[in-house]
Amino acid sequence: MSRFITFEGIDGSGKSTQIKLLADYLSSKGAKVFLTKEPGEGKLGEAIRTMILARRDIEVKPYEELFLFCADRSHHVREVIQPKLEDGYTVISDRYYDSTLAYQGFGRGIPHDFVFDNAKASSLGVEPDITLFLSIPVEQALLRLKNRGRNNRMDEEPLEFHSRVDRGYRELMKRDIERIKEIEATGSPEEIHTEIKRFFE
Amino acid sequence: MSRFITFEGIDGSGKSTQIKLLADYLSSKGAKVFLTKEPGEGKLGEAIRTMILARRDIEVKPYEELFLFCADRSHHVREVIQPKLEDGYTVISDRYYDSTLAYQGFGRGIPHDFVFDNAKASSLGVEPDITLFLSIPVEQALLRLKNRGRNNRMDEEPLEFHSRVDRGYRELMKRDIERIKEIEATGSPEEIHTEIKRFFE
Repeated sequence: MSRFITFEGIDGSGKSTQIKLLADYLSSKGAKVFLTKEPGEGKLGEAIRTMILARRDIEVKPYEELFLFCADRSHHVREVIQPKLEDGYTVISDRYYDSTLAYQGFGRGIPHDFVFDNAKASSLGVEPDITLFLSIPVEQALLRLKNRGRNNRMDEEPLEFHSRVDRGYRELMKRDIERIKEIEATGSPEEIHTEIKRFFE
Repeated sequence: MSRFITFEGIDGSGKSTQIKLLADYLSSKGAKVFLTKEPGEGKLGEAIRTMILARRDIEVKPYEELFLFCADRSHHVREVIQPKLEDGYTVISDRYYDSTLAYQGFGRGIPHDFVFDNAKASSLGVEPDITLFLSIPVEQALLRLKNRGRNNRMDEEPLEFHSRVDRGYRELMKRDIERIKEIEATGSPEEIHTEIKRFFE
């Protein structure tokens, strides 16, 4: 049975750890699990990831960022997510279109309707079955990032940017409470994993 | 006095030649002329150009193409076109947002409203003062391309694709006859140049 699960939250909210724990759990229950992430899976994604997050010599502004992330997503859906779902995998993606809404809409301030239309179009109709939003105070997330060494353009944004993104996620959650589940993500990895498992029993 | 001139038309319609002739003409009349093109000016544009037009190992589908061209345009406007216009240049661009409408909308079949919103947003409000559409039968253009050696992904599309693009340009022209001027582009370079010069006397 294929299933599409996405993880969302600001950087430092602990997504990678929880994705690994959930993947192990679902595998142990017999699911074929495939892990992926945005931006950056597929050849186009790698190239975009390099441009947008890592290259210091290219300045990328809000609209450019939006269009590049959407290009990456379309490619990712078509080359990776859709084929895996069709093969019966449980696909878990570290970020999906809610990131575009939260970061480019709320974070960068591009008009939300425009961002929404693009984020939707870029997903080619492939909707997550469930989205887990890891909820953590922004200050705590940034402290974690600092401790593990900051590593991309987004991480270097000021606190206020991450706060806007966080508020964005909370707004999105309100609009789609059926799909987006808030996970209190301040406890230990095991505690958080226990919270998440509830949705897969 | 700054001025923004764009050239449009299918590949093989003779844009490069006419741009050079017009640039020389306007320079001779005392204008500071700056030539540019899409996709591919600026560092982001070069990277995108490489990905989208030249790399054979990456398959790029319609929506990906649309988003990449829009990312390229935003970057191009912000880094190149806008600063040059502010510096008082006459900027001539080989392709601009009408190409997105004609190629990704009419050529690739992405819903036109969506393409239009994106093409407009990507231009950051910078509108051409005049657009010269070089009008030539598709078969003739393709023959020229063949003779000079085909060199990118678009050129390799079948006749029917280029015909849709051509019909797209004609439709766009009808909608914006004030801005888009049809130039009969089947004659000699000098004849065509004479046609074009009329708009700059």
